Amino acid sequence: MNEIILQLNRDGSDPIYLQIYEEIKNQILNDILHPDRKIPSVRLLSTNLGVSRNTVETAYERLLSEGYIYSKARSGYYVQDLATDVMREKEQVTKKAITSEIETNSFVTRFDFRGNRVDTTNFPLSIWKKIMNQCLKDQGDELFYFGQPQGELGLRKEIADYLHQARGVRCTEEQIIIGPHSQYLLNLLCQMIGLNGQTIAFENPGYYAARQVFRLLGYQIESIAVDKNGINLDQLHQSNAALAYVTPSHQIPLGYIMPVQQRLKLIEWAVSGERYIIEDDLNSEFRYSGDPIPALQHLDHHGRVIYMGTFFKSLLPSIRLNYMVLPANLLEIYQVHLSIYQQTTSRVLQKTVELFMKEGYWIRHLRRMRKIYKKKFDWTRECIQKYMKDDVTILGDNAGHHVVVQLNEPKANKDYHSLAMENGIALDSVTQFLDENQTYENDFHIYMLCFTALSEEKIEEGIKELSKVWFD
Amino acid sequence: MNEIILQLNRDGSDPIYLQIYEEIKNQILNDILHPDRKIPSVRLLSTNLGVSRNTVETAYERLLSEGYIYSKARSGYYVQDLATDVMREKEQVTKKAITSEIETNSFVTRFDFRGNRVDTTNFPLSIWKKIMNQCLKDQGDELFYFGQPQGELGLRKEIADYLHQARGVRCTEEQIIIGPHSQYLLNLLCQMIGLNGQTIAFENPGYYAARQVFRLLGYQIESIAVDKNGINLDQLHQSNAALAYVTPSHQIPLGYIMPVQQRLKLIEWAVSGERYIIEDDLNSEFRYSGDPIPALQHLDHHGRVIYMGTFFKSLLPSIRLNYMVLPANLLEIYQVHLSIYQQTTSRVLQKTVELFMKEGYWIRHLRRMRKIYKKKFDWTRECIQKYMKDDVTILGDNAGHHVVVQLNEPKANKDYHSLAMENGIALDSVTQFLDENQTYENDFHIYMLCFTALSEEKIEEGIKELSKVWFD
Repeated sequence: MNEIILQLNRDGSDPIYLQIYEEIKNQILNDILHPDRKIPSVRLLSTNLGVSRNTVETAYERLLSEGYIYSKARSGYYVQDLATDVMREKEQVTKKAITSEIETNSFVTRFDFRGNRVDTTNFPLSIWKKIMNQCLKDQGDELFYFGQPQGELGLRKEIADYLHQARGVRCTEEQIIIGPHSQYLLNLLCQMIGLNGQTIAFENPGYYAARQVFRLLGYQIESIAVDKNGINLDQLHQSNAALAYVTPSHQIPLGYIMPVQQRLKLIEWAVSGERYIIEDDLNSEFRYSGDPIPALQHLDHHGRVIYMGTFFKSLLPSIRLNYMVLPANLLEIYQVHLSIYQQTTSRVLQKTVELFMKEGYWIRHLRRMRKIYKKKFDWTRECIQKYMKDDVTILGDNAGHHVVVQLNEPKANKDYHSLAMENGIALDSVTQFLDENQTYENDFHIYMLCFTALSEEKIEEGIKELSKVWFD
Repeated sequence: MNEIILQLNRDGSDPIYLQIYEEIKNQILNDILHPDRKIPSVRLLSTNLGVSRNTVETAYERLLSEGYIYSKARSGYYVQDLATDVMREKEQVTKKAITSEIETNSFVTRFDFRGNRVDTTNFPLSIWKKIMNQCLKDQGDELFYFGQPQGELGLRKEIADYLHQARGVRCTEEQIIIGPHSQYLLNLLCQMIGLNGQTIAFENPGYYAARQVFRLLGYQIESIAVDKNGINLDQLHQSNAALAYVTPSHQIPLGYIMPVQQRLKLIEWAVSGERYIIEDDLNSEFRYSGDPIPALQHLDHHGRVIYMGTFFKSLLPSIRLNYMVLPANLLEIYQVHLSIYQQTTSRVLQKTVELFMKEGYWIRHLRRMRKIYKKKFDWTRECIQKYMKDDVTILGDNAGHHVVVQLNEPKANKDYHSLAMENGIALDSVTQFLDENQTYENDFHIYMLCFTALSEEKIEEGIKELSKVWFD
C-alpha cells in the first residue's frame, strides 16, 4: 500500500521533478500522507509515472533535505512526523498595517517653501557622472569589496582637510566615521556612550528627528529652551543631563548663532562634569555675510565635543553621506566594540565624492551655490519686507536655506499653518520642532520659508499670496 | 586708550578683514584685550591701518556675530567678558586611540579562502554602468531628493516578487524595509521590539556580527547549540528567550539546512509564547542541487517571523543593499515610530538595482554565477577528497560560498589556523563564530574554505599546500 496518487501537468510549464516534490510536500502538510507511511521507491514511482529515475530522485532528494521524508537503510523512504498544528491554524495576522504607505495630499501645492529641498538645477551633473564612471573604471576589483568600516580613508582625509580649514575642527581622518544620515551616526554614538537611560539635554525647539532617535534608544529627553544665545545655560545647569545636543552655528530651526561666551560656558559645563556635547553642524556651509563661524568643537581642548556634518545640502539630498568626528576616548570604544558595523555607503559613491572634493569641484560648487542662495535669501527677505512689513519679524542670522518669520500680532484661534497649506502654500512651522511631550502656554507663530528650490519669481508670487491669505 | 596693535600681512595670502578678525579674536581669547575694554571705531582703525572702512566693518561684524565683542548704541564696540578658563587649560586628550587603523599583515597571503569575497570578474559591469547612467539621465530632479524611508517602492516590488517566487516568502512590498547591511536593520528591528534587556536565543556557532549588535543594544544572549537539525529546540525551550536569531536555509557557518519538522516546531515555539524569530537568509541564492529551500517565513501564518536578505553575494559586496520583511504588527510600530529614519541608500543606486532586476539582468547573473560557483564548489570538494581524504570530513549541504571541513584527528596543542595563515593560506575558522563568553571543553577543529574569488588552479594549489602544512 505504498502507492500515491500524483497529478502531474505535462505541458512543460513546470519541471516534472518540481511537481512531484510539490505534490508530495502538500500531501504531507495536509495530512493526506500520514506520518511514518512508506512512500513508493524511486524505481516504482518512476515506472508508474513514466518519468526517468533521475527525475524522481531529484524530487526525493529535495524532500529529504528539507525534512519532509526520511530514509531507512535498505528499506526506503517514509513520511516524517511533523507533529504540529501550526500549519492548520488560520492566518490571524492583522492586515491593517499592510496598506499602501504612499501619502495622499488633497491640496495642490503651488509654492513649496518646505525644507529638505535644494537647488538641483545648478548641480554639476555631467562632471559628477564623469567622475563616477572614472571610479568604476579605474578602481577595478578592490572597489567591489567591503571597505573600511569607518569609510574610505581618502574621503576621510578630504573631509578632515575641509573641516580643518573651513570649520576650524581639530581632527585627523582617523577620528571620522562616515554614515548615511545623522540618525544612523547617533545610533552608533549612543551605543558608545551607553544605553542605560541617560538624560540628554535637547534644544527646544530642536531637530525632531534626532530627538526621536534618542527616545527610541531609551534616553530621557530634557527639553531646554533656546533663544538668540543658543541653549539656555541656566536650565542646562539645573538639568541632570549627561550630554547635550546642540546646533550652535545655525540653530535648528530658529537660525541663531550661539555667541562664543556661551559656547565656552557650554564647554565648561561638559568638561566639569565629564559630559558630552553633540554639535550638529548642519547647514554651516551657507552663511551670506562673512565666513562660516568656526565650529564649537574648535574651542574644545578636552575631547568632550562630538562634531557632526552632512553633504545633504552642499551636494544633493539623495547623496546619503554624513560624518561625525569622535574625540579620542569615544574613538577607542568605537574601535574595540563597534567596528563590526560595516560601512553603510557604497565605495563607488565614497570614491566619487572623494575625487569630486580632491579636484576642487566641491569647493567650486559650494562657492557658486553660496552666491545663488545669497541672492535668493536677500530676495526672500526683500519680498517679506515688501508684502508683510508690519505683520512679521524676521528672526535668525544671515545664513541657511530658509528665512524665519514670527507673526507680530497673531490672531487667537487662527490656524495660520493650515490656512497656508489649504491655499497651496507649503511651509514648515516651528511647532513641528517642539517637544510634543511638553505643554506650552502660547502658540509659537513662527514659520520657515525655505527658498532654495524656488525661482525668484516663484518666491515673490508665493510670499505675496501668503500675505494675502494670512493678513488680508 | 582704545588703540590696538595689529600685525597684518599684506602679501595677499589672506584677506585683510580676516587677519583683523583673527588678530582681535586671539587677543581677546588670550586676555591681551581685557573684558569691557573699548576697541577702536571702524573709522579710526581703518585710518590707522590704511584699509577701507568696509574691510574693518566686515571683521567687526563677524566678531560681533560670534560674540567676541558687543556694541553700545552711540558709543562703539567693547570686548565681551568670556569669563572662562577653558581655553587656557592644557589639552589633556589622550592621543592613544588616534593612530592609523590600517591593518598591517605580516604574512603574505598567497591563497585567500576567506569569506566576504565574491567572483567579481563575471559581474556585468558595462550593463550596470549603462543602467546607472540611464537612471541619472531619465529620473531627473526627483532622484536627487530624499525618497521614501522604507526604500523606493519600485525596488521593493521587485524584491517582493523575487522573494515570493524564489523563496516562498509571503509578503507585499509594503512590508519591506531597505537598509545598507543587516546590522543596521537589526538596529531598527530591536528598536521596534524594545530595548529592555530582552533575552535572545542565538545559534552557537553563529553569525558573530549580528550577535555583537544584540549585545551592544543591551540584549542578553542565550547561546544555543546547532547541529544538522538546526538550532537545538530542547535548549531553546529551556531558555527564557523572547526571540531567536536563526539561519535555517544554510546555517552560518556550518551550512546545515534545518529540516521542515524542526522548522514547524520552531514556529510553534514562537507562536505559543508570542515570540519572534529572526530568519537571516544570507546566501540562500546559491544552492547547487535542486532549487533553493523555501524560507522559514513561508511556513509562518502568524506573523512571528522577520525575514532578512541581502544582495551582497548575489551582486557585489560593495553594493550596500539588504532588506527585511516585517510582519504586520511590527510594521505598524515601524510606521508610527521609526519612519523618522530616512532611507540610507542613495536613490540612484536603488533605482539601478530596480532596473537591473526588472530587465532580467539579475536573474541572468544569478543563474550564471550559480553555474560558475557550482563548478568551483564541486572542484573544491574534489580537491579536498584528493589531498585530504582521510584527514577531514566535509560538513554541510550542497550550497553556499564555502566548503566546511572538520579535522578527523586533530592533534592537541596544534594551532591549525595560525599554521595556515603563517604559510600564506588565509581561511576562516568556526572558532570565530563561537560565543566568546562561553567556555568550551574541546577545540572546534572546523574550517571554511571559501572558493568564490579563486580560480580552479588556485583552489587546487591552495588545498594541496594546506594539506602539506596541516598533515605532513
